Amino acid sequence: MSLLTIGTVAFDDIETPFGRAERVVGGAATYISLAASYFTPAVQVVSVIGDDFPTETLDDLRRRGINLDGIQVKHGEKSFFWAGRYHNNLNDRDTLDTQLNVLADFDPVLPEAYTNADYVMLGNLTPAVQHRVLDQLKVKPKLVALDTMNFWMNVALDSLLEVLKRIDILTINDEEARQLTGQHSLVNAAEAIFTMGPRFLVIKKGEHGALLFSPDNVFFAPALPLAQVFDPTGAGDTFAGGFMGYLASTDDLSFDNMKRAVIFGSAMASFCVERFSIERLTNLSRPEIDQRVQRFADLVHFTR
Amino acid sequence: MSLLTIGTVAFDDIETPFGRAERVVGGAATYISLAASYFTPAVQVVSVIGDDFPTETLDDLRRRGINLDGIQVKHGEKSFFWAGRYHNNLNDRDTLDTQLNVLADFDPVLPEAYTNADYVMLGNLTPAVQHRVLDQLKVKPKLVALDTMNFWMNVALDSLLEVLKRIDILTINDEEARQLTGQHSLVNAAEAIFTMGPRFLVIKKGEHGALLFSPDNVFFAPALPLAQVFDPTGAGDTFAGGFMGYLASTDDLSFDNMKRAVIFGSAMASFCVERFSIERLTNLSRPEIDQRVQRFADLVHFTR
Repeated sequence: MSLLTIGTVAFDDIETPFGRAERVVGGAATYISLAASYFTPAVQVVSVIGDDFPTETLDDLRRRGINLDGIQVKHGEKSFFWAGRYHNNLNDRDTLDTQLNVLADFDPVLPEAYTNADYVMLGNLTPAVQHRVLDQLKVKPKLVALDTMNFWMNVALDSLLEVLKRIDILTINDEEARQLTGQHSLVNAAEAIFTMGPRFLVIKKGEHGALLFSPDNVFFAPALPLAQVFDPTGAGDTFAGGFMGYLASTDDLSFDNMKRAVIFGSAMASFCVERFSIERLTNLSRPEIDQRVQRFADLVHFTR
Repeated sequence: MSLLTIGTVAFDDIETPFGRAERVVGGAATYISLAASYFTPAVQVVSVIGDDFPTETLDDLRRRGINLDGIQVKHGEKSFFWAGRYHNNLNDRDTLDTQLNVLADFDPVLPEAYTNADYVMLGNLTPAVQHRVLDQLKVKPKLVALDTMNFWMNVALDSLLEVLKRIDILTINDEEARQLTGQHSLVNAAEAIFTMGPRFLVIKKGEHGALLFSPDNVFFAPALPLAQVFDPTGAGDTFAGGFMGYLASTDDLSFDNMKRAVIFGSAMASFCVERFSIERLTNLSRPEIDQRVQRFADLVHFTR
């Protein structure tokens, strides 16, 4: 099944307690599409870049089978840029700089071949742009997932609430779930979110794992305890890419299969954080991924 | 197998986003012994109280088979008192008042029958008092667990490091593990703690679950997503009581059995937080506990 994704393709400056990386490749759609490419061959990307973006990286993505026809290249303009510094705990970070550049007036245009996508992953962007993608679809997708963040809840809540009515799965972190619903308990937050549109909710808790809620079920996936978490940038997007890529490849929306998808997403995220930027996501093998999934199974396994 | 525990038996004033409770029964040894009493009939408590402590509560504990011969009653003195206010996230709290009272010059004295205890749970107290308990044991116990907190790392680190050499299992939270070792990664923190004495480490993460480390193994137990967390006070002690009570009752120190103990401890903690004080821990049934353990199993279960 095809998986359409939209999000940034960008540059990051990153400072973690373990080192610095300057002007490395980042962006939600970069991480999402790379992670998904390990599961489904038909990944389609909608984004916008300047002519400063390295063609080698685009070639790397194409070599992984990712369709980049939906990426607009704005000549004479610069790609989106974000600079951040992580605290010692790696769960908190400060934004040092944000340069919208090409993103400032981004109007996504879907190539004809994208307009009947089976699965859709709307990466974190202004809700108006997420709307614009859904508006161009000619066939109702089997599943639409949306990632967002507290920033959009603060500055574009109405538009965000409108787009939530059009999607099936929302992926946010625990604090965002609380902010969006005013509920402290994640069980109650999930219930409130189901009245807003989505049928499923994934709550990403970083080093504390992830929760998958449906109206009738809940599943918890741990994060793997790692000796070295080098750079958390992109972990949430990598999770989403693995999750949606696995669903698109299996085309099975039973809760049991969605649980597996959460574990595959978590496994991909655990690779992502081991190196700066997309380094760890460009040359994985399926046996490596399966081995890591086995570690997730072992980590929580007990007998009565 | 017998389980000896030491800790406070005390009063708490508690404020949570869901209400207030004034001068309710609390204390580490209260929670530990109650939780353990559901698994092993031979729970022995060492503590100190003033004559203001309600005899009805002591009777409740005795009715659950708990041996209180090791509780000193100081006439004309007051029991230990703690007042705290939880933040909206329930994971952080401010201490509003601490009155040591009888705890100020507490010198624990073990009744003769306690001195050959099989299992020992040293609740959070000044490390000097934890030492004094170990000094009075006539037979080396099968397993000694110790709970402590950041406060003792700040004011009594040397004494704490000495007592760590004498124990088998340390239970602390994630921030304390990082403070004690200077390691951010919990994997590396565990490795560092194993060089300090303990053979096992339990990292309590509250609503994010718990990790059990041995030098060769790691196990993760989630926390149950609850619609209502009323009062987190005593959850860590209740966990420790369920964990050690289960180990004492099964007398099996294989890693597989310790995993089960972590789950039973987590299940007991999930009951604790549903009500103020010890209310939920006084009248549970074993089928209720087993049912809750099944929910933990279901929560993380997935098939490849």
